[in-house]
Amino acid sequence: MPIRLSRASTDFDTQFRQFLAAKRETSADVEAAARAIVDDVAKRGDAALLEATRKFDRLELTASSLRVTPAEIEAAVKVCDAATVDALKFARDRIEAFHLRQLPQDQRFTDEAGVELGWRWSAIESAGLYVPGGTAAYPSSVLMNAIPAKVAGVGRLVMVVPSPDGRLNPLVLAAAHLGGVSEIYRVGGAQAVAALAHGTATIAPVAKIVGPGNAYVAAAKRLVFGKVGIDMIAGPSEVLVIADDSGNADWIAADLLAQAEHDASAQSILITDSRRLADDVARAVEGQLKTLPRAGIAGASWADFGAIIEVDRLDQAVPLADAIAAEHLEIMTADPDAFAARVRNAGAIFLGAHTPEAIGDYVGGSNHVLPTARSARFSSGLGVLDFMKRTSLLKCGPDQLRALGPAAMTLGRAEGLEAHSRSVGIRLNLP
Amino acid sequence: MPIRLSRASTDFDTQFRQFLAAKRETSADVEAAARAIVDDVAKRGDAALLEATRKFDRLELTASSLRVTPAEIEAAVKVCDAATVDALKFARDRIEAFHLRQLPQDQRFTDEAGVELGWRWSAIESAGLYVPGGTAAYPSSVLMNAIPAKVAGVGRLVMVVPSPDGRLNPLVLAAAHLGGVSEIYRVGGAQAVAALAHGTATIAPVAKIVGPGNAYVAAAKRLVFGKVGIDMIAGPSEVLVIADDSGNADWIAADLLAQAEHDASAQSILITDSRRLADDVARAVEGQLKTLPRAGIAGASWADFGAIIEVDRLDQAVPLADAIAAEHLEIMTADPDAFAARVRNAGAIFLGAHTPEAIGDYVGGSNHVLPTARSARFSSGLGVLDFMKRTSLLKCGPDQLRALGPAAMTLGRAEGLEAHSRSVGIRLNLP
Repeated sequence: MPIRLSRASTDFDTQFRQFLAAKRETSADVEAAARAIVDDVAKRGDAALLEATRKFDRLELTASSLRVTPAEIEAAVKVCDAATVDALKFARDRIEAFHLRQLPQDQRFTDEAGVELGWRWSAIESAGLYVPGGTAAYPSSVLMNAIPAKVAGVGRLVMVVPSPDGRLNPLVLAAAHLGGVSEIYRVGGAQAVAALAHGTATIAPVAKIVGPGNAYVAAAKRLVFGKVGIDMIAGPSEVLVIADDSGNADWIAADLLAQAEHDASAQSILITDSRRLADDVARAVEGQLKTLPRAGIAGASWADFGAIIEVDRLDQAVPLADAIAAEHLEIMTADPDAFAARVRNAGAIFLGAHTPEAIGDYVGGSNHVLPTARSARFSSGLGVLDFMKRTSLLKCGPDQLRALGPAAMTLGRAEGLEAHSRSVGIRLNLP
Repeated sequence: MPIRLSRASTDFDTQFRQFLAAKRETSADVEAAARAIVDDVAKRGDAALLEATRKFDRLELTASSLRVTPAEIEAAVKVCDAATVDALKFARDRIEAFHLRQLPQDQRFTDEAGVELGWRWSAIESAGLYVPGGTAAYPSSVLMNAIPAKVAGVGRLVMVVPSPDGRLNPLVLAAAHLGGVSEIYRVGGAQAVAALAHGTATIAPVAKIVGPGNAYVAAAKRLVFGKVGIDMIAGPSEVLVIADDSGNADWIAADLLAQAEHDASAQSILITDSRRLADDVARAVEGQLKTLPRAGIAGASWADFGAIIEVDRLDQAVPLADAIAAEHLEIMTADPDAFAARVRNAGAIFLGAHTPEAIGDYVGGSNHVLPTARSARFSSGLGVLDFMKRTSLLKCGPDQLRALGPAAMTLGRAEGLEAHSRSVGIRLNLP
């Protein structure tokens, strides 16, 4: 049974704090194992990569068969259901249109002192996209990671995807094709992350690695961070639904289960000021679970991590939502926009009863790679800026250097950095 | 002696690659030690923090003396040289003016299907600012870290700074005061990072930690990444000067030494198409070193990691500059703006002979926290966006759900996520 909390109960604060602190992932300490793999690939390149692939994916490859060929990609696209490929194209176009609006503006201006200042954005040269194999191989995620990179102007976009026992999901290859991926290698795990970061004879290194993966992948990304850029370390996913008495219990239950079916450590939460709705949703979840193919996973997630929190007034839901900092926040109240304006921490907000989160997962256009596990307190969903970097620009002439220089010299000396001061003084004939 | 390379030599490519690959930091593996400290503070809070401070800073504190008092800050400001405080204020105002221009715009739009989309930026609630103690305690860095946070709208800005043997740099406290820091604690090292990330009875946790530190601090930041946000892991600093025959050898030498005096692992590089200038700069560096207070550090940096690279035409400097991806790039050529437009990878670009990098360190207004050690290939200097996060917004009505829903249902089923499909179908009366 999911937890039921009531804001009115005297020990609510303690209960809520415990609820927030509960760990949803048994984070097996795989750091040492990941480090050994990363170091080996850094040192021995392809040989280590092929060895690890033989061991973990039970797949015998050579350097020349690492890369998925154009013919294989073409064949994969042909094998896919046409309606599904059309849906992927529909999604692709909407995701592209949304992300085109994220392209940043450069700035250049001259201040009162005549100093020219500004900055300039440019795309990173190359990016690596990690795609999990097996059940979590989602073609939609390929689009969500690849399209912002292409929109940013990344020239070389390299995908790695494990193919355990040689199996590759044709839809993943089709999505890579639609998303503009330039190279695909059939490798995964920490070894694939290491190959992307350090490069091998076959796989040229990239500047940044994005995409979700298992604990080994996450540990490897943490290890290579600095050598290359990485996106967030993805944790278990969650949805928070905030609804008033007008909420449709069946729809809300369906949304809670859509989140829960991802993973047994996913989390679905309802906050409502309506006891009637709370009870109805609890019942509806149990009812809908009965016919769900992934009832095992969804049921475990709901039982272990699900929660229904009753509040006296919806006002009280605002600080709770900020503390939860949900990856996905659905608001089904009389005026969802006004309510959304009061919440600070959320990865994405879905407004009104006709915006189930699944729309955002696939075809809304916004990105479904969002900060999980409370990280919406400090980070954002994936976007075009993640594939660009900003270079600042500064230009003084002699007059500007005269105006600014003395203060710089004072600070240089105060910090014990005499050569800093002299580099200014030598241009101004100042001691 | 610094390395001298010539683009014209037959093995230039190999030499340049080796030059790029050379490690400038002996990264002592302090991960295990940092992990033990972080875990201890996470578990035992203040008690562990006080114990580590006693051990590493030789300082006996209690929970109530951890925080620097308003009276101490006031006293510190009074003790500082007035001209230096004025220079800090001048810097503060210029940095603030520059960063105010970085505040991002929200977006909200309705597409052809009638779907409302957009995003909204909000400040993170709290940030921690790590400031090193000892010789690397730079008041200018306090301003560079604090001001973007305040401009972003961060409400609670917490500074930690170690005070070995009880010593605190009054200028650091003055800069914190000018920069709007809300709380200051006299702790440092991995224990301070852990306290900021996990919180203790005395120090409430923050959402993100920024600021440079030693190897233990860097390791601790890597460990708490995910629990909280972090900025980049700072590596050794570098400058690349690109100059043609018009370059002033004495000015360039002064700039190379300003970089070199930071740290024995700092790096100063000149690329020029003028052998005359190359020789003159090499001589000028040796001459200026003789009277430099930090000649030991600067000389070691220049001898071990300095480089002068000759090219036949300045054109050839562009790919070299992109491969080096310097933290600081100074361009002293006939048309520096045109040259800068061709370089993709640099943290900050200083245009023309009258813009020594030291201006950017202190009073230019742009941020001096910049990507080091080739990370300008994939990351940006510190800015206002580092203290904000983006929440995406999506809103469908019944018509929009009818238009987008079927494609979402197709993709949900193709990914084996039936509950995703049903959460859409239940609203559309679709099976």
